[in-house]
Amino acid sequence: MKKTNKKTNAAIIVIGNEILSGRTKDENVSFLAKWLNSLGVRVAEVRIIEDKEESIVSCINEVKKKYKYIFTTGGIGPTHDDITSKSIAKTFKLKYGFHHEAYDILEKYYGKNKFNIGRKKMAKIPDKAKLIYNPSSGAPGFIVENVFCLPGVPSILKSMVYGLENKIKGGKKILSKTISVSTVESEIANSLEKIQNTYKNIEIGSYPFFRLGKVGVSIVIRATDIDEINECCKQILNLIQKKKIKIIQRK
Amino acid sequence: MKKTNKKTNAAIIVIGNEILSGRTKDENVSFLAKWLNSLGVRVAEVRIIEDKEESIVSCINEVKKKYKYIFTTGGIGPTHDDITSKSIAKTFKLKYGFHHEAYDILEKYYGKNKFNIGRKKMAKIPDKAKLIYNPSSGAPGFIVENVFCLPGVPSILKSMVYGLENKIKGGKKILSKTISVSTVESEIANSLEKIQNTYKNIEIGSYPFFRLGKVGVSIVIRATDIDEINECCKQILNLIQKKKIKIIQRK
Repeated sequence: MKKTNKKTNAAIIVIGNEILSGRTKDENVSFLAKWLNSLGVRVAEVRIIEDKEESIVSCINEVKKKYKYIFTTGGIGPTHDDITSKSIAKTFKLKYGFHHEAYDILEKYYGKNKFNIGRKKMAKIPDKAKLIYNPSSGAPGFIVENVFCLPGVPSILKSMVYGLENKIKGGKKILSKTISVSTVESEIANSLEKIQNTYKNIEIGSYPFFRLGKVGVSIVIRATDIDEINECCKQILNLIQKKKIKIIQRK
Repeated sequence: MKKTNKKTNAAIIVIGNEILSGRTKDENVSFLAKWLNSLGVRVAEVRIIEDKEESIVSCINEVKKKYKYIFTTGGIGPTHDDITSKSIAKTFKLKYGFHHEAYDILEKYYGKNKFNIGRKKMAKIPDKAKLIYNPSSGAPGFIVENVFCLPGVPSILKSMVYGLENKIKGGKKILSKTISVSTVESEIANSLEKIQNTYKNIEIGSYPFFRLGKVGVSIVIRATDIDEINECCKQILNLIQKKKIKIIQRK
């Protein structure tokens, strides 16, 4: 787990000035990360970048070589600030114009009379891209090589990803257990480090929390092998018992 | 606004596997972005990276040259997965060991008897770093060159940043107005693009929303000059009136 497995990792690229300005809080990263984890794909990096062609092109050029799957969110709508499609075409040196299948889908969805210039823009997709179908609002996403382009609106994005599961080849599923205890991190830090050093295939995370005026720590154990997780959990529970720390929750 | 002004921009680097796994939703990016905007600093990029020394070192090496200010969040606590301080020392080729001022602050905060190994680790900070004081929980953040290292716990981070305002030299404040209207993006996309093309110093963002079963679009106008914003707003209001679109909210 400590080494990034290039065969089954991914990066998420959030395209949108509204996130960088703090106006909108991103909701897609945690959803996509959990969904990819469930397919055995580990998200190794996230970038949030500006609605600027040069930023998109240079970012995608960099990450597409580094990670197996790239997911972009945002910038595929009808307005002038939606430039993902055009920028991806430029990145892969593909023609940017009407994509016949996307055009047909959108024309059917809106009806010929209501298929105006703005809506037609959403049919402009890099040449030869495969479409990602959109059961919520017509406008498709698309795939070019290892880059999957999705919309930014969380409910629409969610409705689209499940159709992608047969296109993603993950590794072993990443499993996790969490033990939340009533203590502060510094009380267990040293012993926890020793346990981490014993289990090289396991990732132990320690996260302090403050809830209803009480402090606690969630210890998260992540790995692909459930037996190893259970063994590591046992060591942590021994440590907790020895230190007479109260367990708040296990899951 | 369209060109990134290198004199007054920033990147935020979120260090934490718990965000990449989807377990925890980041809350610091939007807070930091708004706070930096209020100081005239524009966030140009955000990266979320793993708790891995090589990831932190290579990321910081890349972004510290690209942007004026770098803010990191997370990884400065007492446990084995808190490696920001050590990684920043490596990035800048500085000694990593007890920082006298940080040691004194923490020893005073916890009292000699309760200043255990875990807590002492939080006094290990790159040599010659300037401290960022922590009014909530003792453990300081630190500054090395243009890199400001903050904790990941949102309430603690918030209590620490206000003490930094005299260390940040921003440009003109970025102002914004928002007009929310009852329409869909494709109805206004074409006209909005024409307005955007007229106002090169202004950034017009268009964001669809779905609330209580109704659809709408928030048009956000951002710039540093309030007169330009007002003039641009007038054009947008003319367009809305011409198309007989209902205004939901203006702010």
